[in-house]
Amino acid sequence: MRYAEPINNLIKAITRLPGIGEKTATRLALFILNSKEGYVEELSNCLKAVKEKVALCSECMTFSDADPCGICNDPGRDPSAVCVVSDYRDMMALESMGGYKGRYHILHGSLAPLKGIGPDELRIDELIRRVEAGAVREVILATGFDSEGEATSAYLARLLKPYGLKLTRIASGIPVGSFIEYMDGATLGRAMEGRKEVS
Amino acid sequence: MRYAEPINNLIKAITRLPGIGEKTATRLALFILNSKEGYVEELSNCLKAVKEKVALCSECMTFSDADPCGICNDPGRDPSAVCVVSDYRDMMALESMGGYKGRYHILHGSLAPLKGIGPDELRIDELIRRVEAGAVREVILATGFDSEGEATSAYLARLLKPYGLKLTRIASGIPVGSFIEYMDGATLGRAMEGRKEVS
Repeated sequence: MRYAEPINNLIKAITRLPGIGEKTATRLALFILNSKEGYVEELSNCLKAVKEKVALCSECMTFSDADPCGICNDPGRDPSAVCVVSDYRDMMALESMGGYKGRYHILHGSLAPLKGIGPDELRIDELIRRVEAGAVREVILATGFDSEGEATSAYLARLLKPYGLKLTRIASGIPVGSFIEYMDGATLGRAMEGRKEVS
Repeated sequence: MRYAEPINNLIKAITRLPGIGEKTATRLALFILNSKEGYVEELSNCLKAVKEKVALCSECMTFSDADPCGICNDPGRDPSAVCVVSDYRDMMALESMGGYKGRYHILHGSLAPLKGIGPDELRIDELIRRVEAGAVREVILATGFDSEGEATSAYLARLLKPYGLKLTRIASGIPVGSFIEYMDGATLGRAMEGRKEVS
């Protein structure tokens, strides 16, 4: 015996979400089946709204319901500094830190040749266009410190070098709150290399 | 800075699903934002279809897109045996076993006074009505062996006793493939108690 057809279809649709297997999808589908009147409509409306109302900011490529987005449109944010990140969530993490007053550029991915993600799949052309427009004086490379993020950063560094602007990479080292003894050798090496004089 | 309003709304709606926290909801929302054209529509349609087309079978209270459901409508299934389960998924698990040829009754929950779930919250009246209709000769109590399932089973046993039908409880013991040494005392006690003569 199988689940009723509409339940099965819903389970299949949910399974396509990342990190959700058939067991979880079944649990969610049955929760939805049992849910109060109105929840399905609310969820459907939210799903549609997110696709209809959210688009990429034509300047920094972030997801936004306005174009330009809140940051690109904010006169208090320095247009001469552009922090390049792989992902929207990376930008949100940096924003939650609060101290950065420049702007962003979202690549929407990292270089990963084995997964078929080359420079053309990322929003690199848009970054070059911003640099060529002339207002940018510093590009801060804030892609991850995994191999893909490092490769992306190295690639962008080579690509941007001819423009003669300040190119920086965010620091690698030991995270705040961590113990030295538990750190891996690569991180310790980076931390040593990036050591600073104590005043 | 916060996520754009439509993204935020979607995250909030997803967070209401069971077992999904804000981090996972955010990941799913961003996946949906990035998803191919058509996925959102498919998901929305499945969500609506499941609520519109699936209802409870008026006989056994299972979720079904037909009334009576496939099992209650199957002349090959014995109407005199009714296996009582707490949940639709319990029925599906028993069905996947394949050997049972009777029918079911889904309670849609277990007695849990501390959670405010009393007999009135379960589909017990419907079970009594089926028993009173006269065709049922055996009620198999197949609620779980956790405290709520046991309480539900005990409650139903008391309630059904006056009808003079055969009342059975599925066996408790050591699961197939398990090692004795890893079993808890309660299970071992049950297994001892329920021992059978070897032919």
